[in-house]
Amino acid sequence: MESVVLINPIAVPDDDQARETFLAGWRNAADHLRQQDGFISTTLHASLNPAARFRFVNVAVWASAEQFQRAVSATEFQHLANRLTYPNFPALYQVVAD
Amino acid sequence: MESVVLINPIAVPDDDQARETFLAGWRNAADHLRQQDGFISTTLHASLNPAARFRFVNVAVWASAEQFQRAVSATEFQHLANRLTYPNFPALYQVVAD
Repeated sequence: MESVVLINPIAVPDDDQARETFLAGWRNAADHLRQQDGFISTTLHASLNPAARFRFVNVAVWASAEQFQRAVSATEFQHLANRLTYPNFPALYQVVAD
Repeated sequence: MESVVLINPIAVPDDDQARETFLAGWRNAADHLRQQDGFISTTLHASLNPAARFRFVNVAVWASAEQFQRAVSATEFQHLANRLTYPNFPALYQVVAD
């Protein structure tokens, strides 16, 4: 099995309430995922420019695509994820060049 | 000075020619940037699903925002970057949670 990288750019509006709502939801989801099989790490990035198209980008490493899919398909995670109402584009990636 | 992370999600179409054109341009740009002051690393990610909204995501680390801005403002880099015609959303980030 090869590890995979989940990258999720998230378009959170540039206002304090949206930021706090998003951060609270991210922490809940991260605390849940941290306990699932295959979780390796998760790192949340915030843009230096608050007006960037993607205010936040989450970069997480999982031991396998299968374990990631199992974790995010679970009902408990679905309830947490449904609260993330900002446009976001999660996908699994592999490193191709560095 | 605090290091910063450049994250650039790039919407490259799912066809072989677009992929090869993009990869050649990315390598040229990366080879140039690698030699600039403040460059630390660059990592190109490709989506497992070729139909993902962002087929590629570049994640690069720079020693400072100022050094990154200087590198990408230089005429030589501008010529390289102008060849990247796919929609892309580069921004500088800092880690806020992990």
